[in-house]
Amino acid sequence: MPIDVAKVVGAELPRTTASWDRDDVILYHLGLGAGVPPTDPGELEYCYEGRLKVLPTFGVLPVFSTLTGLVGLDGMDFNPVMLLHGEQEITVHKPLPVRATVTNTGRVEHVYDKGKGATVVVVAETRDERGEPLCTNRFVAFIRGEGGFGGDPGPAPANEPPDRDPDLVAESPTLPQQALIYRLSGDKNPLHVDPDMARLGGFDTPILHGLCSYGIVAKAVVDHALDGDVTRVAGFAARFGGVAYPGETLVTKMWRTDRGIVVHTDCKERGTKVVTNALMTVR
Amino acid sequence: MPIDVAKVVGAELPRTTASWDRDDVILYHLGLGAGVPPTDPGELEYCYEGRLKVLPTFGVLPVFSTLTGLVGLDGMDFNPVMLLHGEQEITVHKPLPVRATVTNTGRVEHVYDKGKGATVVVVAETRDERGEPLCTNRFVAFIRGEGGFGGDPGPAPANEPPDRDPDLVAESPTLPQQALIYRLSGDKNPLHVDPDMARLGGFDTPILHGLCSYGIVAKAVVDHALDGDVTRVAGFAARFGGVAYPGETLVTKMWRTDRGIVVHTDCKERGTKVVTNALMTVR
Repeated sequence: MPIDVAKVVGAELPRTTASWDRDDVILYHLGLGAGVPPTDPGELEYCYEGRLKVLPTFGVLPVFSTLTGLVGLDGMDFNPVMLLHGEQEITVHKPLPVRATVTNTGRVEHVYDKGKGATVVVVAETRDERGEPLCTNRFVAFIRGEGGFGGDPGPAPANEPPDRDPDLVAESPTLPQQALIYRLSGDKNPLHVDPDMARLGGFDTPILHGLCSYGIVAKAVVDHALDGDVTRVAGFAARFGGVAYPGETLVTKMWRTDRGIVVHTDCKERGTKVVTNALMTVR
Repeated sequence: MPIDVAKVVGAELPRTTASWDRDDVILYHLGLGAGVPPTDPGELEYCYEGRLKVLPTFGVLPVFSTLTGLVGLDGMDFNPVMLLHGEQEITVHKPLPVRATVTNTGRVEHVYDKGKGATVVVVAETRDERGEPLCTNRFVAFIRGEGGFGGDPGPAPANEPPDRDPDLVAESPTLPQQALIYRLSGDKNPLHVDPDMARLGGFDTPILHGLCSYGIVAKAVVDHALDGDVTRVAGFAARFGGVAYPGETLVTKMWRTDRGIVVHTDCKERGTKVVTNALMTVR
């Protein structure tokens, strides 16, 4: 098989640096649909440099260049168009600043055999100018067609919702042009803009970025369960259970539990899963 | 009076340079509401670097730093919060490229006495890397409270619509967060985001940038009267007849005439003028 597990597990990804400033933070938030209504003080904190806060999921962006190191890694012979984002977990060690220059390191932690595909788990550390840890990202890439090699299937999905009604439900409408705005934050995969590429990837029309849904859901949880206080977020883990299309509305159910806020998000229009098995940990 | 006409007329503004690339062009177009529906080939040409075209009104952006030289110019003693954008005219000497580094020069051409205020006319030239003229901008700033000094009132508004039904009518909805997106293209005036600053400026809530309305109207004319062909635009002159609020819909009426396309835009919800006395010249 084209993924050489022995070679890949433990491999270091290229060390990268990244910088951001207030405009990058605001653009990211606008890419998640922030700023409605624009006179809401809480929304202005996402969109106005005079009062800016940073949603912790912003921390997935600076690591992007490290992650792309997976393509071309020795032992990772696969078709990039077959790669889907399977899961994402960010741990924030302190609130993210509105501007920073950071250094990222990453390594492949696991390759699991899911039968229809393989999952490749990458863990990346982001450190600030003083070398202090800012956030840790755990990316799980699902590579279609690369499973069935008799390997470890890995752990079952965690964070199933409790068997009771949710404590909170929030609706997040998305714009028809949501992916067009979101992609300016760095993920230029044409799957999210080009109808021809979307069809090649097996979709009728371009889909929303998984990490866009991820941010939209995190924002909904922060706004509704944490009163907009981004500094209370310790981490956010989620599984991409299905795709959303730009213009659809995400319905996010939240359950307060001992471990944090368990989250499940469906597409309102099609009743399908979008973000599942999710947990926001809180401090 | 605080504007010393003899000193100001003929004054050179600081020479500035500016650069842009595809992402800046796309961000500008998204700030005008482009990308709906996102699968429309014409809209994709505004939002996807794979097929990108540049709306000629993009050429107002690189000159912004030259214009701000008006504040602090010797002889120009006025309160910046009293300044409103009165008129705008761009002449494009060739289609704007998707990336460039340009040099801007500018000078004050006229100061007119409008009674309730003064208008200051600045003409700025933008040249590309080879020194060739790319576009010429004529900005008219209306400074409230600075008129009545017995000066020349200047020419009356031109480009009145013909006395007949328009040939074309287009509606351009704006997003509640339209100004939040548009301001990332460079005009960070808090009047367009901060409710307190808007009230200080005499408005109930933040207003849309005049140049955002200007771009929205230019796009409507290009899309509906020129079949989306941005290269046919020779120039676009317009007067800001009133304000629009984010979330409102602009209704643009177009008349084909010998001199070009005469344009008038109202706010659908309030029936008030937004862009008046406008003319798109065509090649």
